[in-house]
Amino acid sequence: MTFDDATQIVPNLTTTLTGPLLSLEKTFLNRQVEIETWLRKAWQVTPAPIQCSVDLRNAGFKLAPVDTNVFPAGFNNLSYDSIPLCIQALQATFAKQFPGCEKILLIPENHTRNIFYLENVATLVEILNKAGYQVKVGSLIPDIESSKDIGLPSGRTLQLHQILRNNHKLYVENFMPCMILLNNDLSDGLPEILTGLQQLIQPSLKLGWSNRTKSTHFKFYSQVASEFANEIDIDPWLINPLFSTVENVDFNHKPDLEIIAEQAQQILQKNC
Amino acid sequence: MTFDDATQIVPNLTTTLTGPLLSLEKTFLNRQVEIETWLRKAWQVTPAPIQCSVDLRNAGFKLAPVDTNVFPAGFNNLSYDSIPLCIQALQATFAKQFPGCEKILLIPENHTRNIFYLENVATLVEILNKAGYQVKVGSLIPDIESSKDIGLPSGRTLQLHQILRNNHKLYVENFMPCMILLNNDLSDGLPEILTGLQQLIQPSLKLGWSNRTKSTHFKFYSQVASEFANEIDIDPWLINPLFSTVENVDFNHKPDLEIIAEQAQQILQKNC
Repeated sequence: MTFDDATQIVPNLTTTLTGPLLSLEKTFLNRQVEIETWLRKAWQVTPAPIQCSVDLRNAGFKLAPVDTNVFPAGFNNLSYDSIPLCIQALQATFAKQFPGCEKILLIPENHTRNIFYLENVATLVEILNKAGYQVKVGSLIPDIESSKDIGLPSGRTLQLHQILRNNHKLYVENFMPCMILLNNDLSDGLPEILTGLQQLIQPSLKLGWSNRTKSTHFKFYSQVASEFANEIDIDPWLINPLFSTVENVDFNHKPDLEIIAEQAQQILQKNC
Repeated sequence: MTFDDATQIVPNLTTTLTGPLLSLEKTFLNRQVEIETWLRKAWQVTPAPIQCSVDLRNAGFKLAPVDTNVFPAGFNNLSYDSIPLCIQALQATFAKQFPGCEKILLIPENHTRNIFYLENVATLVEILNKAGYQVKVGSLIPDIESSKDIGLPSGRTLQLHQILRNNHKLYVENFMPCMILLNNDLSDGLPEILTGLQQLIQPSLKLGWSNRTKSTHFKFYSQVASEFANEIDIDPWLINPLFSTVENVDFNHKPDLEIIAEQAQQILQKNC
């Protein structure tokens, strides 16, 4: 048996491209030891967020992220084969970063009818359970009384609980968590019930969409991409999306759209 | 999608038993959160050895280890699907326990014709490489000059290097490792070249077969099994092999064999 092929990278990526590997992918495979060493050192300086989804665009000759979400939905879309890896990664990360933690309160988005989203939450609960954590789901929906069961097409039942607060701690029923895990992107701002807590909250409340901007994210990404590209001797352009920022845009205001179109045109010209 | 079934335990075990789960397995699945929590705390007190194989005997109603090897051969027998898990486990363990380490000198047994053993070494090298570590294989065989290439049926080539020593450090060619990883069980005692080194050696030289006895191992295992069984409310007998010790046995001396037979008989009677 040999597994010296592209499919043995962790995680395995499913792709519709089945032709020979392109130059960039060959470089990633040939330089794998250096890449993993670089990543290992980078994680030591900056631990990865405990959950994250990255949208990648792969043009074949260029492969770059276009969006990064630290409150990802889509755990239900993970391939069945990757679940053991998720469980193991979670165990390693939590054991290292939160060694005493046993009980987790998961706070999802306020969707009760988006079945795909709720399946996502149910999968995240199962991954946490399999990793050895007790989990309850607490909902920020104002009119939830005590608890609400939602049956899902997968056969699972998701139980949403009313979140209660005692001084500086959140709990549900008689379940007092050591960690609050947010799967809610806080796009409407920080709810009052989450302010001033003395419990561990992951990811940081500062990473909510009401605080983060894509342009800041991609400014930092650009620095990291350059360091990495330098390490493996590639042009950073191959892994870095070009971007530009336009401030104070009103999408209902036509002149603003023209400014965006102009900026987009300039980026496309740079890219040629 | 649901993965609430026995196959989604990490790692997945391939078994010829396909009938309904027996009582012990059901208990393991039902108590999974408590079991993982217990293991997590146990690993914090006593980190697992970085490599280990355990021979299990599964009678269906009873499941117990009968041998534990911290210098395991058989990496080539790992299922293809479990390789990403091995890589990830190795990355997590090494990053935590040996954060600065980049270069590993692997010292295997002195077999040059046991192809299965050499495939095992080649697989271990590949797992270490994929995890992001530079690896060279150093041989304790006295007459290896410089290096020796061995072609394997898998298509891989294993390169054995002569081990050199400079004061308190081992190296091969111009490769100075930060860690020496033993896949050699030291059953003939500790070679002089491995004594008094100032490099990190894993597993500890004290764990060689010339130092360890099975009876001591199973005495400790018995304590751990009792603690664990107490945690999940099962009879420790279900996971603990009964054993007995006979000292100073000469297998060519018939009266000694009779003593062993007598002890075995007593154990079998206890087991009924």
